[in-house]
Amino acid sequence: VRPLHARTLVGIPEIRPGDDLAAFIDAAAAPGGLMAGDVLAIAHTAVSKSEGALVELGSVHPSARARELAEQQGKDPRLVQVVLDESDEVLRAERGVLISRTRHGLVCANAGVDASNSGGRETVVLLPRDPDASARALRRRLRELAEVHDHQGAPAVVITDTFGRPWRLGQTDVAIGLAGLIPFDDWRGRRDAEGQELRATVLAVADAVAGLVDLAREKDSREPVVLVSGLERFVTEDDGPGARALVRPPDEDLFR
Amino acid sequence: VRPLHARTLVGIPEIRPGDDLAAFIDAAAAPGGLMAGDVLAIAHTAVSKSEGALVELGSVHPSARARELAEQQGKDPRLVQVVLDESDEVLRAERGVLISRTRHGLVCANAGVDASNSGGRETVVLLPRDPDASARALRRRLRELAEVHDHQGAPAVVITDTFGRPWRLGQTDVAIGLAGLIPFDDWRGRRDAEGQELRATVLAVADAVAGLVDLAREKDSREPVVLVSGLERFVTEDDGPGARALVRPPDEDLFR
Repeated sequence: VRPLHARTLVGIPEIRPGDDLAAFIDAAAAPGGLMAGDVLAIAHTAVSKSEGALVELGSVHPSARARELAEQQGKDPRLVQVVLDESDEVLRAERGVLISRTRHGLVCANAGVDASNSGGRETVVLLPRDPDASARALRRRLRELAEVHDHQGAPAVVITDTFGRPWRLGQTDVAIGLAGLIPFDDWRGRRDAEGQELRATVLAVADAVAGLVDLAREKDSREPVVLVSGLERFVTEDDGPGARALVRPPDEDLFR
Repeated sequence: VRPLHARTLVGIPEIRPGDDLAAFIDAAAAPGGLMAGDVLAIAHTAVSKSEGALVELGSVHPSARARELAEQQGKDPRLVQVVLDESDEVLRAERGVLISRTRHGLVCANAGVDASNSGGRETVVLLPRDPDASARALRRRLRELAEVHDHQGAPAVVITDTFGRPWRLGQTDVAIGLAGLIPFDDWRGRRDAEGQELRATVLAVADAVAGLVDLAREKDSREPVVLVSGLERFVTEDDGPGARALVRPPDEDLFR
């Protein structure tokens, strides 16, 4: 196994709607450039901003339900309305946090709506409308740029968000969008050197890669992209099933 | 921020009770040796075996409750008895999996009892009795060895296990024992370049480091130790609060 190496890409500017994020990434990765077996882990806020997935709170008219929840939880009713708009179902409202299942099926706080990192106090950042499609589009564009520059191909793309965990304190980054990286490494049925079946383990490789974003960069550094090498064995030519495959179907949720 | 670099340590033999695991690690890290700011992520099975945290199933006499649960879940009643012995509370028994809160407060499948990786079909591996104490002891011993060899000090130690997640498919490694690495990187109250408060984020750094174990090694390679550099900013001279700090207190568990 090759050693794993991760570094933040320096010099990506604050992203605005319509920006060509892939071109900024391609430029920031020079002169080494991006290799076909590399993996890019990208904080979703950069992707959301480039896609214009932003809401001006001044344009939001909170419903009666949003105003009620906001009062209970001590939140801005306009922000609560945006969270409701992004949610299929609110699972909990407690201690100032709304936990919901988003339109993508993700269970997380505030439906992934981010009131910081937005470049303005009255603007919030949503999750990308379809994060797997965003990852595929970024990979496609990176492949185009690689051909122009005669680089060695397009890396895999992992789009991340920071989620809490029910039984553990603190948050970790997980994969919400994915292209070209296998979501799982399935070890079931493989046998060890003594022929004994290994523990039923399906490693969530894409989430482990997403966790690297926390480690390789400083959170306030405005460096939303981490370049990882040494994971070639998990990278595929096809874009694959995406991060949607990591979402546990509600009927398999052990905790409902 | 320094780039992050992770590699498996090659040449650590199958561990047996009483083995000096730290000495094997120290030898495997040569000639580069271990640096004071390095982090060692160690799969708990190696630690458990060195501490003799093993149970011969032939010596186990299953209780009536163990026999009943085993029949319901299609499991070996002796294994179920070991899981019960390791559990403070069984939270769920479903689809062949017992989810319990261990004596350490960890919520996981089968109380962390591992029927593979044990070096024999009739032996199971438990979690270390006190994984934070195990991590401190390993770090202390590594420091002693560093002094003997005139290395540059002892690295931080993270002991890992592979856990499932309620809302997401697949498993990831988390920190169950910790010495010399901060469990959290607390960003609350920090402000971005525009003076706006960053999202209330407390990164579970130790769990993100544990996740590297999945990425840096092959699961069947019998290489239980991954050496990580580039995380000096999270490493402390003191051993710190340990991985116990990552366990959400039951009264803060949003899902009970």
